[in-house]
Amino acid sequence: MAEALPALLYLPALAGPGTQVDLDAAEAHYVARVCRARAGERLEATDGRGARATLRLVTVRGGVRVEVEAVRHEPLARPAWVLCGAPEGERADWLVEKLAELGVTRFQPVDTARGAWRRAADRRERWERLAVAALRQSRRVHRMAILEPTPLDRALAGLPAGCGRWLADADGLPVPGTTAGQGLPGVGLIGPSGGLDGGERDAALEAGFRPIRLADARLRAETAALAWAAWWASGDPSTP
Amino acid sequence: MAEALPALLYLPALAGPGTQVDLDAAEAHYVARVCRARAGERLEATDGRGARATLRLVTVRGGVRVEVEAVRHEPLARPAWVLCGAPEGERADWLVEKLAELGVTRFQPVDTARGAWRRAADRRERWERLAVAALRQSRRVHRMAILEPTPLDRALAGLPAGCGRWLADADGLPVPGTTAGQGLPGVGLIGPSGGLDGGERDAALEAGFRPIRLADARLRAETAALAWAAWWASGDPSTP
Repeated sequence: MAEALPALLYLPALAGPGTQVDLDAAEAHYVARVCRARAGERLEATDGRGARATLRLVTVRGGVRVEVEAVRHEPLARPAWVLCGAPEGERADWLVEKLAELGVTRFQPVDTARGAWRRAADRRERWERLAVAALRQSRRVHRMAILEPTPLDRALAGLPAGCGRWLADADGLPVPGTTAGQGLPGVGLIGPSGGLDGGERDAALEAGFRPIRLADARLRAETAALAWAAWWASGDPSTP
Repeated sequence: MAEALPALLYLPALAGPGTQVDLDAAEAHYVARVCRARAGERLEATDGRGARATLRLVTVRGGVRVEVEAVRHEPLARPAWVLCGAPEGERADWLVEKLAELGVTRFQPVDTARGAWRRAADRRERWERLAVAALRQSRRVHRMAILEPTPLDRALAGLPAGCGRWLADADGLPVPGTTAGQGLPGVGLIGPSGGLDGGERDAALEAGFRPIRLADARLRAETAALAWAAWWASGDPSTP
């Protein structure tokens, strides 16, 4: 298929074949001005919930209108969740962007004894924008869910049985092969910049998290998160 | 050993046991004000070239003076080089910091057809500061070398024979086990945000780079670099 745009369009209200949609101002600008697409050209879009649609550009005069030609749903084969303690300063924006790019499915900020997510509410809107931008740029069709910060114990208690669990830990073992129940998430747990305290670490181990060493040195919180995500992303999707 | 400081001190001119050193203003501030270390306490320092030294704090009055008690040299077991095309905008600062944290040995910006490192000279000083900060924070003793930007073909021609070589490539194979000649660097090559052009990609393949897929989607330049570095960092140092 001739692909007129380098990035996917993000259309959260994407409907079935035959329907027409008027793009909002930002998407219209991207199509008509940035990419200079022309009527008749084909574009791809996602709803961020697994649908990848082929669109035909109906008009670029005035507003930009597209018609949905085909939609296929791509199942989430290898979900990845990240539970993450608070990094220092302004590093969370970058973290959100990178995790979304690396295909993390769910980003769960966790409050711990040595680190609380104080500004998560203020950053929410920006994080959602970054996650959507990363989705479009990486041409993924599953938008990263950004959850409200929650205490670590509650996050641990809420995990599905049987999912793979790893704890980023400078004293852990080298990363083993990625294994998890088919379709279940692998979960990486990363402490805040001050580290988990003893009780929290025990709770994580009790909850089945295996300490793994992502590098041969200490990593900052957001880097450990990135490293875990990168390791997970590098696994062969056919052998989860 | 009681360790008074969370971060290593960086003393590029570190000398042998018995020598005394007056810390510069920044390190003195860190020791005396941030960490409130006291005379008689022991600290660790590196010269960034593989030496890890134990120091005794002689005085914190006026200036801060330390005495070197012992120095041991840690060989560079598993060097990692990154050849990297230019990312977009201001992303390089973060990239430099993260690569240094992940233990990359040598950062070689490469100029390619679709991306040139235009502001590398302006950023040089800042990058060196970030690399040192990452060294101290991660308690590493080998400072990442930051090279001047060079054309891709020259960078390829200058690689040592026998080193492991991988090309970050969205169409590549899933990452295999990390293998490289003992003591030789693994080299990750990452194109700029616009991607390598056909000839550059051919040149890389000719030079022995194996295309690998670091994630199941396109990654931004700096993220691919991070992912490669994270994958490399996760390898077992005992089986290079």
